[in-house]
Amino acid sequence: MRIDGETVRRRMDTVAAEEPLEIRIGGTPLSVTMRTPGDDFDLVHGFLATEGVVTDLESVRTLRYCAGADEDGRQTYNVIDVALAEGVAAPALSLQRNFYTTSSCGVCGKASIDAIRTLSAYDVAVDPTTVTSTVLIGLPDTLREQQRVFESTGGLHAAGLFTHTGHLLCLREDVGRHNAVDKVIGWALREDKLPLTSCVLMVSGRASFELTQKALMAGIPVLAAVSAPSSLAVELAAESGMTLVGFLRGRGMNVYAGDQRVRVAP
Amino acid sequence: MRIDGETVRRRMDTVAAEEPLEIRIGGTPLSVTMRTPGDDFDLVHGFLATEGVVTDLESVRTLRYCAGADEDGRQTYNVIDVALAEGVAAPALSLQRNFYTTSSCGVCGKASIDAIRTLSAYDVAVDPTTVTSTVLIGLPDTLREQQRVFESTGGLHAAGLFTHTGHLLCLREDVGRHNAVDKVIGWALREDKLPLTSCVLMVSGRASFELTQKALMAGIPVLAAVSAPSSLAVELAAESGMTLVGFLRGRGMNVYAGDQRVRVAP
Repeated sequence: MRIDGETVRRRMDTVAAEEPLEIRIGGTPLSVTMRTPGDDFDLVHGFLATEGVVTDLESVRTLRYCAGADEDGRQTYNVIDVALAEGVAAPALSLQRNFYTTSSCGVCGKASIDAIRTLSAYDVAVDPTTVTSTVLIGLPDTLREQQRVFESTGGLHAAGLFTHTGHLLCLREDVGRHNAVDKVIGWALREDKLPLTSCVLMVSGRASFELTQKALMAGIPVLAAVSAPSSLAVELAAESGMTLVGFLRGRGMNVYAGDQRVRVAP
Repeated sequence: MRIDGETVRRRMDTVAAEEPLEIRIGGTPLSVTMRTPGDDFDLVHGFLATEGVVTDLESVRTLRYCAGADEDGRQTYNVIDVALAEGVAAPALSLQRNFYTTSSCGVCGKASIDAIRTLSAYDVAVDPTTVTSTVLIGLPDTLREQQRVFESTGGLHAAGLFTHTGHLLCLREDVGRHNAVDKVIGWALREDKLPLTSCVLMVSGRASFELTQKALMAGIPVLAAVSAPSSLAVELAAESGMTLVGFLRGRGMNVYAGDQRVRVAP
């Protein structure tokens, strides 16, 4: 749903693809990263190089997609197993990123979504909150006015927690997007305000799977971002009954999921 | 060094602070994240909530800064130990993010920098490459023209590898900034082009410690970003002899480290 001022249209939109990639060395899981599918062999080679595992091509013997299948039996192309050349040591470090899926069903976006939905203590789908487009349109300005450090450095992401009437409850900034959101949710936990029913979380930048997951874990029914959402963020929001707003700037926005919560107001 | 067209000034600039934070539960390291110091207790509470470890404040008994000290014996305030309430299970998952420092000296930016410098197989400090400001100013346009997916989704980060004369060697896009860079460096590894002496890596968005580290691991002497660098990115670049350019847009740029490589040209 595209809102421009008081004009509402419904149209198809293209979003950036996001899917998990699990990297294994000799069959042992090493890392999971959320990535855009494509150039996966480049990604794995680069990961090995920048982690200091290999410095030349001869150190990598083979790469292959594992036969991980999703619940419908389709190959996911989301697991790559690396065979290193003889004498090349696999990293002793655990490089496991924060990730919830079991490897039993292969790794795929659907599995990631199901895992998060099971893990969350709150069901945002039943939250009857609505918010007007006027309130949403005002959030970026409030966020920007209140950002203390951004003005001087241009280097910080911001996350702001608002009531559904647009009152700012908490603003946090960080070099890491996920940290800014964690700081806001941690503030709420310390104030004993979880779950954050009827609240809106506004983030500078884009809406990724990780940020959507964090909002869901705190019971936030509306997530709004200045920039684009990823495919998996939209899917997670849609499947969990969360409202996801992207490209919230000027007098407009795109509502990618849960548009029943957004009331267009003059 | 601030360059506007042909005008060069040297002035102080403020950058966003970035330092590692190690989170321990009952003394056991759980996670390290690069964050902006401040509101650390909020960050840890939020991390515990969004990871599904706790859902209420009573589940967290105490938080305290560990007595981790840097090599000068100063408290770093970069390690927080969490005591969970009785009966609250610590996460079984490894949530360790990719991180190199040993915990022996406390966790601090200096330790992170030393670890990376030891790990890298290449010394970019000895790379005699220079690049003109005209070439640098042209890079963002080339990157944007070549970005295939961004136009339609607005949702992808880009990383482009250029020769020092501005010829594009490889462009990759991803929902994750670090993945776009890994894809570029992985392409170079597969083409047997490492180390990437005399090259320039251009990234959309900001220059973090992680991206600077990746460039260093591939032997890239010049890193340029459309937006702001973090404090630790500047420190790592300066200590390793890398040229770091930020706010590269329009006819201007800021050079934060290694400005001997940038020749101002009409």
